[in-house]
Amino acid sequence: MARYGTQYGPDITFLGVERCDWADPSTYAGADVVVLGAPFDGGTSHRPGTRFGPSAVRQACYLPHDGSRPSVALRVDALRDLLVYDAGDVEMFSGDAVRSVRDLEEAVAAVAATGAVPVVLGGDHTIAWPDAAGVARHVGQGRVSMVHFDAHADTGDVEFGSLVGHGQPMRRLIESGAVRGDRFLQVGLRGYWPGPQTLAWMAEQGMRSYEMTEITARGLDECLTEASAIATDDCDGVFLSVDIDVCDPGHAPGTGTPEPGGLTARQLLDSVRRLAYELPVVGVDVVEVSPPYDTAEVTAYLANRVVLEALSGMARRRRDAQDGTTWDPRQPLLEGR
Amino acid sequence: MARYGTQYGPDITFLGVERCDWADPSTYAGADVVVLGAPFDGGTSHRPGTRFGPSAVRQACYLPHDGSRPSVALRVDALRDLLVYDAGDVEMFSGDAVRSVRDLEEAVAAVAATGAVPVVLGGDHTIAWPDAAGVARHVGQGRVSMVHFDAHADTGDVEFGSLVGHGQPMRRLIESGAVRGDRFLQVGLRGYWPGPQTLAWMAEQGMRSYEMTEITARGLDECLTEASAIATDDCDGVFLSVDIDVCDPGHAPGTGTPEPGGLTARQLLDSVRRLAYELPVVGVDVVEVSPPYDTAEVTAYLANRVVLEALSGMARRRRDAQDGTTWDPRQPLLEGR
Amino acid sequence: MARYGTQYGPDITFLGVERCDWADPSTYAGADVVVLGAPFDGGTSHRPGTRFGPSAVRQACYLPHDGSRPSVALRVDALRDLLVYDAGDVEMFSGDAVRSVRDLEEAVAAVAATGAVPVVLGGDHTIAWPDAAGVARHVGQGRVSMVHFDAHADTGDVEFGSLVGHGQPMRRLIESGAVRGDRFLQVGLRGYWPGPQTLAWMAEQGMRSYEMTEITARGLDECLTEASAIATDDCDGVFLSVDIDVCDPGHAPGTGTPEPGGLTARQLLDSVRRLAYELPVVGVDVVEVSPPYDTAEVTAYLANRVVLEALSGMARRRRDAQDGTTWDPRQPLLEGR
Amino acid sequence: MARYGTQYGPDITFLGVERCDWADPSTYAGADVVVLGAPFDGGTSHRPGTRFGPSAVRQACYLPHDGSRPSVALRVDALRDLLVYDAGDVEMFSGDAVRSVRDLEEAVAAVAATGAVPVVLGGDHTIAWPDAAGVARHVGQGRVSMVHFDAHADTGDVEFGSLVGHGQPMRRLIESGAVRGDRFLQVGLRGYWPGPQTLAWMAEQGMRSYEMTEITARGLDECLTEASAIATDDCDGVFLSVDIDVCDPGHAPGTGTPEPGGLTARQLLDSVRRLAYELPVVGVDVVEVSPPYDTAEVTAYLANRVVLEALSGMARRRRDAQDGTTWDPRQPLLEGR
Amino acid sequence: MARYGTQYGPDITFLGVERCDWADPSTYAGADVVVLGAPFDGGTSHRPGTRFGPSAVRQACYLPHDGSRPSVALRVDALRDLLVYDAGDVEMFSGDAVRSVRDLEEAVAAVAATGAVPVVLGGDHTIAWPDAAGVARHVGQGRVSMVHFDAHADTGDVEFGSLVGHGQPMRRLIESGAVRGDRFLQVGLRGYWPGPQTLAWMAEQGMRSYEMTEITARGLDECLTEASAIATDDCDGVFLSVDIDVCDPGHAPGTGTPEPGGLTARQLLDSVRRLAYELPVVGVDVVEVSPPYDTAEVTAYLANRVVLEALSGMARRRRDAQDGTTWDPRQPLLEGR
Amino acid sequence: MARYGTQYGPDITFLGVERCDWADPSTYAGADVVVLGAPFDGGTSHRPGTRFGPSAVRQACYLPHDGSRPSVALRVDALRDLLVYDAGDVEMFSGDAVRSVRDLEEAVAAVAATGAVPVVLGGDHTIAWPDAAGVARHVGQGRVSMVHFDAHADTGDVEFGSLVGHGQPMRRLIESGAVRGDRFLQVGLRGYWPGPQTLAWMAEQGMRSYEMTEITARGLDECLTEASAIATDDCDGVFLSVDIDVCDPGHAPGTGTPEPGGLTARQLLDSVRRLAYELPVVGVDVVEVSPPYDTAEVTAYLANRVVLEALSGMARRRRDAQDGTTWDPRQPLLEGR
Repeated sequence: MARYGTQYGPDITFLGVERCDWADPSTYAGADVVVLGAPFDGGTSHRPGTRFGPSAVRQACYLPHDGSRPSVALRVDALRDLLVYDAGDVEMFSGDAVRSVRDLEEAVAAVAATGAVPVVLGGDHTIAWPDAAGVARHVGQGRVSMVHFDAHADTGDVEFGSLVGHGQPMRRLIESGAVRGDRFLQVGLRGYWPGPQTLAWMAEQGMRSYEMTEITARGLDECLTEASAIATDDCDGVFLSVDIDVCDPGHAPGTGTPEPGGLTARQLLDSVRRLAYELPVVGVDVVEVSPPYDTAEVTAYLANRVVLEALSGMARRRRDAQDGTTWDPRQPLLEGR
Repeated sequence: MARYGTQYGPDITFLGVERCDWADPSTYAGADVVVLGAPFDGGTSHRPGTRFGPSAVRQACYLPHDGSRPSVALRVDALRDLLVYDAGDVEMFSGDAVRSVRDLEEAVAAVAATGAVPVVLGGDHTIAWPDAAGVARHVGQGRVSMVHFDAHADTGDVEFGSLVGHGQPMRRLIESGAVRGDRFLQVGLRGYWPGPQTLAWMAEQGMRSYEMTEITARGLDECLTEASAIATDDCDGVFLSVDIDVCDPGHAPGTGTPEPGGLTARQLLDSVRRLAYELPVVGVDVVEVSPPYDTAEVTAYLANRVVLEALSGMARRRRDAQDGTTWDPRQPLLEGR
Repeated sequence: MARYGTQYGPDITFLGVERCDWADPSTYAGADVVVLGAPFDGGTSHRPGTRFGPSAVRQACYLPHDGSRPSVALRVDALRDLLVYDAGDVEMFSGDAVRSVRDLEEAVAAVAATGAVPVVLGGDHTIAWPDAAGVARHVGQGRVSMVHFDAHADTGDVEFGSLVGHGQPMRRLIESGAVRGDRFLQVGLRGYWPGPQTLAWMAEQGMRSYEMTEITARGLDECLTEASAIATDDCDGVFLSVDIDVCDPGHAPGTGTPEPGGLTARQLLDSVRRLAYELPVVGVDVVEVSPPYDTAEVTAYLANRVVLEALSGMARRRRDAQDGTTWDPRQPLLEGR
Repeated sequence: MARYGTQYGPDITFLGVERCDWADPSTYAGADVVVLGAPFDGGTSHRPGTRFGPSAVRQACYLPHDGSRPSVALRVDALRDLLVYDAGDVEMFSGDAVRSVRDLEEAVAAVAATGAVPVVLGGDHTIAWPDAAGVARHVGQGRVSMVHFDAHADTGDVEFGSLVGHGQPMRRLIESGAVRGDRFLQVGLRGYWPGPQTLAWMAEQGMRSYEMTEITARGLDECLTEASAIATDDCDGVFLSVDIDVCDPGHAPGTGTPEPGGLTARQLLDSVRRLAYELPVVGVDVVEVSPPYDTAEVTAYLANRVVLEALSGMARRRRDAQDGTTWDPRQPLLEGR
Repeated sequence: MARYGTQYGPDITFLGVERCDWADPSTYAGADVVVLGAPFDGGTSHRPGTRFGPSAVRQACYLPHDGSRPSVALRVDALRDLLVYDAGDVEMFSGDAVRSVRDLEEAVAAVAATGAVPVVLGGDHTIAWPDAAGVARHVGQGRVSMVHFDAHADTGDVEFGSLVGHGQPMRRLIESGAVRGDRFLQVGLRGYWPGPQTLAWMAEQGMRSYEMTEITARGLDECLTEASAIATDDCDGVFLSVDIDVCDPGHAPGTGTPEPGGLTARQLLDSVRRLAYELPVVGVDVVEVSPPYDTAEVTAYLANRVVLEALSGMARRRRDAQDGTTWDPRQPLLEGR
Repeated sequence: MARYGTQYGPDITFLGVERCDWADPSTYAGADVVVLGAPFDGGTSHRPGTRFGPSAVRQACYLPHDGSRPSVALRVDALRDLLVYDAGDVEMFSGDAVRSVRDLEEAVAAVAATGAVPVVLGGDHTIAWPDAAGVARHVGQGRVSMVHFDAHADTGDVEFGSLVGHGQPMRRLIESGAVRGDRFLQVGLRGYWPGPQTLAWMAEQGMRSYEMTEITARGLDECLTEASAIATDDCDGVFLSVDIDVCDPGHAPGTGTPEPGGLTARQLLDSVRRLAYELPVVGVDVVEVSPPYDTAEVTAYLANRVVLEALSGMARRRRDAQDGTTWDPRQPLLEGR
């Protein structure tokens, strides 16, 4: 049996949802979502600690761990309106990135094969390669577009002598054909990496990267609208990869490679909710939460809410599709939503 | 004599203002404002620590503790233009919420009876019940409207088997008649609590709750304008209750139940200043500052400034009323204000 | 059903042992030990946070949470050689100390009634009253002696207007007759509390309190030998109450009322192991771990090991009784033990 | 030889750029920029720690310390496109502010005399006096305008019995004639200091101070445009002095006198970049980073990026001047910039 | 009037004792002890922060701030059995060490002149010069011996170009004749400073320095006995100077120049108590507590207890002198002491 | 060229000693000691962070980084009396433990081949395998004995599916023949790992492991004397491997797998000094310092001093051998040593 439980610390599930075994689909028959933990920091280029990310993100909440989270804003309870399981962590030895990545892809692919949406809790961003590749094995190579929130492009080639690492997953995904370069949308880039050569390679692939300067100048909403149009053009599903360092270090200090000048937590939550509501999400990962660098669990809480907003958006999307209704952000809270 | 001093740590007053004894009105004759500490965390549902809030908020300032704080923006010195006293802490044993709440209401009511505005430093939000109820005993049941900044509605019914706790004060206030449900304005709600049943109860009471989604979509200023109109409609005074967790955890990490995606510190300070300037404030509390979870006193400083903005707004309101002038936020600082 | 799970955070058990329901003895039939969590800080006179103690102590370990901990020194695996269950937390609302204490005593008494040894994870020291009283209901009033590791005597009468609090449990136990004053052994006292009047009361009860000065002058071993003789004189069992602040704040910073000049961690672990090996332990509590004040989990780890040393000592005691052997601390590790 | 290396800790340079000796211009012949460390906190009125600022700001980066930082947004590598040296720290004994300030001015003046732009890493804001005065000795008294980002006006007269301190440098600069009062632009002021008398003095000097209220009401961009016009009117160069506390404490907790309600990190970085791109910068200092109060290096990272944005703006300004091009913030990242 | 109150933060006194003005002896007529704060870190060679030492040490206690601390071990209440006042802080601008030191000596001398024992709360160790020199002005030059607990000899000559600093006070005291070199006893030295030249100078002065190696080999008690004999040989009083870094960093992390391998907290407290009980103490300082580097107030608590043990030892010394009794550390706590 | 500099952060050397390139022996001709950094945490089973160990240990000192550290106790300046170089870090990608270990062994062997003593700064304890194996390639297989300070035996077989990790190096060394099992001395073991099977394997190898219980019962000095005799029996050199977690977490919180009840810092420093003075040391590593979990650099300081005590002991050993003298720990500091 493949269920591993929590690799570090006690065996818990995301906010108390039911457990399952990813290798035994009968344990999550009919699931809408399966949470997987990827407790890995062997691919990070600077501060480690993301191996404790899955555990921290699963429990960063002041409410009871009862498998229920009714969204005040969206009026859905994603953990109940959707059938959500937690398959525990995939065992990932940080000292062997190649093996760890391979094992994770198997688990993600197994989940995706059942039609459930895998939601992977990182771990450093190395895992985006197996995450999206595992989904693409089900949806189809090149049929998944990527919306990628991050301060960094993560399109490096070789780092520390390795093809596998948290600065390279997006290149691997494009090179392998899992995701088309011209269906690759990046939001929040900034800073001093990568250099011109890599940016040129990105341009050649047809990637569309929204740097913070453009976002500030044009507005985040406009950029997201544009990105959404690209993402849904001739693709069958969207993978949402959220590196918590897309937010400003003031909002997300607990991460390995913080880059000042990012989104606010509010912006990220609104963006994730909107995309999950508007787009056909087929996979999600939330990565780079490093608890040893966090303060008062601020970053873990944010990542926990990113997961919940994604799930709540998906739940509301389904309900509105069934009911023929539309969610209006301007409607007063207590006038029904 | 009822003056207790600081319950925890040395006996200090808010930024060095004069001391008084709430039970002996002669010690604060003519006072405009009386500060009270409510060092209580027996009602919190998660992280404690707010018992140290009054002490932390009283002293979180890098300037001399001399009972003077000239506002650069408003050109008033609230601690001197108003007659402000600090009555010390009401003794509140966290292990006995019912008794603590009762004792606090007595103190607040005694202060309010003199016409002074009580400014209560929490403590967890449990204290909003005795705070506003104590004021209503003077102003009149149902004659006080409430403007409530918070991530949470705090309208729960029974939690942990108790009617008294930091998730329930607003329900108690409405049920008791102290505050009318349709004069209850909430700003900054978000997240995954309370559930539909409680939201339905809130709607029935005619509450008006501005969730962050609406605030983002419509703009905070517009929401506040709308709320102010309701608050002053057929009411004699406004109670301002500021839960520091209305701000994003990045701006206020030191709190018990942080909810990502909140206001910025700038937004909160501007809002409190504006409301104190525009509305007839009869009571204030600033709650949920938990020093053990704070970093570099960021949260305590913010709460200290919330108090000062409220007092400065009140001082400027009075001066403008006397002078027939109006404060213009767009005026350059050095061109007279 | 009375099993509550972990009151704060996810539902976990002590290092992964099996779960049970204290109210249903069939769920722990034949148990040697039942762990109970007492997540309470409503009785603390200073820094709170012990409500998170049970959760922190249950999981403060770098080894897998697999319900096994083979002691290198004692060559027993207490979690397997003994039948150990974890009944989760008793719900304790910190805002109602009286009710919380009453509920805890019920749970402890229920466990003790089955012959299992209750091991209660605090929580502040308030809980020693219900802990030892609950055990005495089974063993007999006055038939349980107490060995109490602490910086403080905890023999106060009324604090903050309450008979219930973390400075008073030992007085309540003696006054109620649950524990005889002259079978009350205290180890590690120091500092500036209580005052002469309380010390006089203690002397009248025939208590034997080893202050750090005496311990330093005479040696800890000699003091423990003396204490053990008293504890087993005309009593049927020993309750071991370990306040983590008996250790020096350098070894246990995460606590509410730290008093410099205490035992080292090594001294405490050796003492607890020795007493559990030599004496007929009928109940244990480990209290006053306050995670928000801890650094790098140092204090939680120490408390976790205090529990393990107590259990390992008990397990070895039983094995040696069966085998007619004796444990020799001087024997080299690898020469069989 | 005057090169001192790093006063505290190992001898390092800003992100690995080459070393030089400020007293020997041949060691930095042709330099565009010379970094100087000012490890001083003897002038701070509250929390110290800025003595470790230069060391922290030099190394707060997750990328290799290789003297290269290609700006993703601006498409320049400031550390390579400009000739940048690091002269190490000026020895500054915090216990002798007068001597320290004098020595620093010598070093800055020596650098400025060569035509290189001194970039001084503080240290508390005391150093702005020698920094700008040192530059003015080269550019001309009254020929340098000042753009000053700060929560505080720093125009006090005497504090703690001294003319030298972090609350007074701007007054010293104006009084000495180094900088004209009516070419003094302040951005981000707020809070409760200084009082009316000092504000009156500032008005008399013709200073233009943008308090946060005006910035919020009018927009930061509009204010900067206005300020830029004044700064370049009949002046030969602009000194840019950035006190990190201009940002909100949520974005910059590691500082000595935090004032809630400031700019976001994004706003500061955009402003610095814009000004460095648009104005003829002749000197820069970045001050008040206090590592002991920082969390997860958030503040040090921000200050490091402020330096890089200033240098990158300068590099792009030069390139555009040479190429006759203009940088467009709205241009997509991968469409060439 | 010279009373300054607390230079940083609110105006408090040591554990709530009465206030006085050092410049007006009538305000402390008959005092046995006068506490003075020396909030200075301008002389430290590494981590600052000791400016907040006096404030931290005054309040680091979980008991009420009521001017009473009955010693459990010694059965005296030093704050009541002795007449103890707190004169607040001497204003010490860290940016001007020379002036600060001069002003402090005046204050200490004024207190000593009345016959009261000055107890000075540092501040960095720079202050030992004015502290002991101020006392010697009353007792007589060369008539005061020094017992000095420290990891460092503090006998440097010139550091950072200054005669005044925390590495040089002991040299200044000997050079000035205030204290005889051969009545200078040092306890706890270790590490890698000072070098051979300074050690040779120390030997020439006839100093007696107990390095940790000797202390470990011979035992602390034996060393103290030897030191006490020297200290009382042809001298009229003993100054006790306690640098908190004499303790191991595990017991005292909050300090500027930590040196591993020091005393335990228990050893320091026992030593200070013993010396205060056995020797004619005429002055005390407790220095180098740096709150920004402290964790959970561990170091501040320790320093607070060092003060209390010194005072309690003095109080018991007086009582035993009056009663003709002797304190026996081996006596059981509850058998009268 | 193989010199890599510091892998993380700026390029620094141990306390400022000269640089060299391990692959080019001409750069360290005649060296007595070569420091190597092993910035690796890919082998840790719990908390990571030791990748920052080499950088932290190199600089954790409040004294100038000038390549000189005169030992007060031993009267040698190890960094000058010995010829000490720092070769920087070996590049070790934490995501590839096998490759990293192989590369490190090459570097260590290259250094050892020149006759210099390699001193390796970890990194997690995985590195002890390449460290001692690299030395054995020079000294001879089975000709190096091992003295190993640690809370853990590190003799696991396979962990996380890998032969390489921080729980297994000692087994690899014995299995490979590099170190004889019966010349393997372990000091400080304790806790709950490994289990009986592994202990049996250890016994079979003839290992001698001093668990804390035996150390406490017999005394550390006696145990070390016994161990030294074994270590020098028919072996040509001693490798000293110091896992910082041998100390109590109170003295060394910044580590990955803390085990309460360890040595004090004083005990460790004395032990390392004594062994380096008495035994023919041919290699040293100091491992498991994890800066993200450290507080106030306490652990990094301790590790820095462990290195210095080892080097100082070696330097004094050589001097005494040359002079025919002996060091006496009981000799007073200032009477010549």
